[in-house]
Amino acid sequence: MLGIQLDRSSQIGISRQISSHIRLLILHARLVAGDALPSTRALAKELGVSRTTVSEAYEMLWSEGFITSRQGSRYRVEENITLPQHVSAAPGKADATGSDTFPQRIRYDFRTGLPDLSAFPFKQWNRLEKDILETVRPGDMLYGDAGGYQPLRRAIAAWLLRTRGVAANADAIFITSGATYAISLAIDVLAMNGGGVAVEDPCHLGIANALRLKNVDFDQVPVDMHGMRVEKIRQDGLSGAYVTPSHQFPLGYVLSAARRVQLVAMARQRDFTIIEDDYDSEYRFAGPPLTPLYSLAADQVFYIGTFSKTLFPALRIGYAVVPPRFHHAWLERRHYTDVQNPLVEQAVLSAFLDQRMMDKHMKRPTALYSRKRQLLIDALADHIPHAAVLGDGAGMHLAIKVEGLVFGEEFEKTCRNHGLYLTSCSRYASTRDYDDTLLLGYGAVEEKSIVPGIGLLARMISKS
Amino acid sequence: MLGIQLDRSSQIGISRQISSHIRLLILHARLVAGDALPSTRALAKELGVSRTTVSEAYEMLWSEGFITSRQGSRYRVEENITLPQHVSAAPGKADATGSDTFPQRIRYDFRTGLPDLSAFPFKQWNRLEKDILETVRPGDMLYGDAGGYQPLRRAIAAWLLRTRGVAANADAIFITSGATYAISLAIDVLAMNGGGVAVEDPCHLGIANALRLKNVDFDQVPVDMHGMRVEKIRQDGLSGAYVTPSHQFPLGYVLSAARRVQLVAMARQRDFTIIEDDYDSEYRFAGPPLTPLYSLAADQVFYIGTFSKTLFPALRIGYAVVPPRFHHAWLERRHYTDVQNPLVEQAVLSAFLDQRMMDKHMKRPTALYSRKRQLLIDALADHIPHAAVLGDGAGMHLAIKVEGLVFGEEFEKTCRNHGLYLTSCSRYASTRDYDDTLLLGYGAVEEKSIVPGIGLLARMISKS
Repeated sequence: MLGIQLDRSSQIGISRQISSHIRLLILHARLVAGDALPSTRALAKELGVSRTTVSEAYEMLWSEGFITSRQGSRYRVEENITLPQHVSAAPGKADATGSDTFPQRIRYDFRTGLPDLSAFPFKQWNRLEKDILETVRPGDMLYGDAGGYQPLRRAIAAWLLRTRGVAANADAIFITSGATYAISLAIDVLAMNGGGVAVEDPCHLGIANALRLKNVDFDQVPVDMHGMRVEKIRQDGLSGAYVTPSHQFPLGYVLSAARRVQLVAMARQRDFTIIEDDYDSEYRFAGPPLTPLYSLAADQVFYIGTFSKTLFPALRIGYAVVPPRFHHAWLERRHYTDVQNPLVEQAVLSAFLDQRMMDKHMKRPTALYSRKRQLLIDALADHIPHAAVLGDGAGMHLAIKVEGLVFGEEFEKTCRNHGLYLTSCSRYASTRDYDDTLLLGYGAVEEKSIVPGIGLLARMISKS
Repeated sequence: MLGIQLDRSSQIGISRQISSHIRLLILHARLVAGDALPSTRALAKELGVSRTTVSEAYEMLWSEGFITSRQGSRYRVEENITLPQHVSAAPGKADATGSDTFPQRIRYDFRTGLPDLSAFPFKQWNRLEKDILETVRPGDMLYGDAGGYQPLRRAIAAWLLRTRGVAANADAIFITSGATYAISLAIDVLAMNGGGVAVEDPCHLGIANALRLKNVDFDQVPVDMHGMRVEKIRQDGLSGAYVTPSHQFPLGYVLSAARRVQLVAMARQRDFTIIEDDYDSEYRFAGPPLTPLYSLAADQVFYIGTFSKTLFPALRIGYAVVPPRFHHAWLERRHYTDVQNPLVEQAVLSAFLDQRMMDKHMKRPTALYSRKRQLLIDALADHIPHAAVLGDGAGMHLAIKVEGLVFGEEFEKTCRNHGLYLTSCSRYASTRDYDDTLLLGYGAVEEKSIVPGIGLLARMISKS
C-alpha cells in the first residue's frame, strides 16, 4: 500500500521503521497534505504486524506533527510539510589532530611530554578508587563546584606548601581538566577585554595554537640560556605573558632571578598578568626544587600545574592558583563550558595526596627519569660527542644542539621511517635559530632502548 | 646574623625557610648586589642546623640565580635583583557562580535539571567500574583521542540507533564533558568566522551566558506551543540556530513537523547550522520517543545529548553527532583546550551500554518520573486549579501558567525563605510574556514532598 519494506533483523523497531518510511514519503511529497493514511487494521494486516505496532508508528508521526486526526476519522497528512531537494555538501577533512599514525613501528620513542607509566602504582591507585566508590554518596554525584572538589583543593594546597613552599589558599586553587585547560581558561579570562599575550619563542605548540584558535594576538619573545628575554617584550597592549620559568619548554633553561624580578616588575607596571606553567618541575635531578614566580607576586600570577606528568594523562587533572580578582570570571567561564571535572578522579587524587601516597610515589619516577636521563646523556657523549645538551637537569626531556646541522620535518620523517621518534625544535620556533636543535623525551622510551636509539640517531645524523 | 626565625613545626622544610628568608632580604634590598652571605658553617652554627641544610638553601638560591659563587669564595648576591614596592590590588568578587546558598533549609526542592539519583544503580555501576580498573592497561592511561574513547563512540552509535532510530557513524560521535561543553564547542566551531546564533526565547540561561561570554551575537526568537517561531529568525548573518525540538526548554513544547521542515530548509538556504539539544527526550511518558531533527538533515545538524540526566551529572559525559565538514575544527579545538575526558568513566559507560544495562536501567527513572509528574499534576489540579500545565508530557520538569499573576525574583525568594525552591520562567525570557509562568522540576524533589510542596506553593500564591 505504501511500499513499506520491513527489516525484521534490524536493530530499529518495527513501528519506527514504519514511521520512518511514512515520514520520508511525506517529506519527499509522495504523500501530500490531506492524504489519508491506511487504517491501522489494514496496514497491520498488509505488513503482518499487530495493530498496536501500527498505532505506535502513527502516534509517533502524530506527535511530531506530520499527520493529524479528527475524532473517528483516519489520520491525514498535515499542511506544509515537504522538504526542498538538497545536494549533500562534500564532507570536510575529518582526520584527528594530534593522532599520529606510523607506517613503521616505533622502536625508539623519544617523544616529549609522555610519562613512563611503568613507575605508576596502578594497583594502589585502583584500590583507593574502589574504596572511594564504596563511600561516595549519591548526593556527590550531582553537579559540583566549578572550582573543583573541595577536599582536593585543600589537598593540593597542602601538597604545594610541603613540596614547593607555595602558600596558596585552597579557595584560590581551581581544578581543571589538565594544565592545557587551565592555560586556556587563563587566556580567556585575561584576553576578554582584548590585549595580546607574550609567549616564549620557542614555545609549546599547544599554547600557540590555543591563542590562534582564540584569535588572541601573541608576541613571540626570544629565549636565551636565562629564559625569556624579558626586555624584548613589546610595550603595549598586553594582557598576559605565558612563561615556563622552572624549565623552559622546549629548551630546558631556568628563568634567572634577574629576569624573574624584571618580569614581575614589568607586569605590575604595564598591568599584565603572568601565566606560569610549572609543567614538570617536580622532576629536578640536581639541587632542590625551584621556587615558583608565583611566590614573588601571588596577585600577578596564574600558577599552573598538572598531574598528567606525575600520575597519568588520562586522569585529566590539572590546577591553577588564580589571583582573587579573576575568580569570578574564571568560575563563570568554567560553569558555562563544562561545569567541572568528574567527581571520582578528584576524590581518588585527594585521598592519594592526603595519605601521602603521592609523596612516596614521587620517589620512583624521579629515580627512574634521573637514571634514564643519565643513560641518555652518556649515550649522546658516546655516539654524538659534538652534540651539546642544553638546559637544566630537570623534567622528562632534553634538548641537544648539533652545530651546523639542520633538523627539520624531513629529518623527523626519515627517522620515523627507521622506527625512531624524535622532534625537531624548529617546529616550536618562529625563527630558523633552532634548526640545529633536537628534542629527546625520556618518558615514553624504554630504558633498554635508549642506547641503541641514540646509536641509530648517530647513524641518521651522519647519513644526513 | 640575617634575622632568620625558623619554625620547626612548619610543614615547610628548614632549608626552604632559610632560602625564602634570604630571598625576601634580596628582593627588598636588605641584601644588595655583591653582599656576601655567611659561610655555611657560620649560619649552620647560628641556626642550630646542619651545614647540609644551609648548603641546600644556598643551592636553591643559586640555581634560581639570586646568588653567585666563585670557586672557593663565599656566595654573593647577584646584580639587578630588587623588587619595586607594590601596593596589593583589592581582591575581586570571588564568589562562585551558580552555587546557591540558602538561609533556610529547602524542604520542597522543585529545581529543574537535577535527576533523582535514588533510581540509579550505583552498586551495579561501581561493580562495573571495579572490573574496568582490573582490566585497563597502562597504555590506555596516556593521552587518548580528542574525539573520545573509541568503544564508547561505537556504543553510543548503537544506543542512538536502537532507542531513537538515529543512524550515526561512530566516527561522527564526539564525546564531551557534558552537553554544555558540546554546545560550547559547537558554538565555537560555528561562530569562528563571525555570524550570530539564533536561540529560542525563553532559552536556557547557560546557552545565553555562553554566547555572551564568547561575544557571539544572538538572536532571540519567540516560541509558541509549536516551538520556535521559525519565520521570526532574522535574515542575515547567522552561523547557527540553537533549538530544543523534542522538549522546548523551559516551556516543554515539541517543535512541530511544519516548523522542523521550515527550519531545515531555512538552514540550507541561508547556510547556517542547527544545534539540536536533545537534553531529556529519553523521558517521554506518552507515545514513542520523537525522531530528532538530525534524522531529517544529518549534514546540517549538530545533534547533542547527555548522560547527566539519565545517569548522573558528576559523570560529565555528553556527546555531539557532528557533521563531517566540522570534524577537523572540532577536534583541533578540543585538542588544544582539554584534550579529552578521563578514560575510566568512558570505559565504564561503554560497558554499561554494551551490556544493555542502560536499557534495563532506563525503565526505573522513566517510571519514577512518570509517577512524580502525575503526582505533581494531580496536586496542582487540587491546590491550584487555575494553573495551566504547559507543554508535552516529557522530561524532568513542567511549566505552569497562572494567568494574571507575576512571578519574579521576589516571589522566588519569598518561596525559598519558606523552604520551597522553584524557578520563575521570567529568568529565561527577554520579554515580560512569561512573568506568569513557573517551572517545577520533579527530579530532585522527593516523592513524598510533592503534595505538601504544592500545598505550600498554593498558599504562597494566594498570599502574593
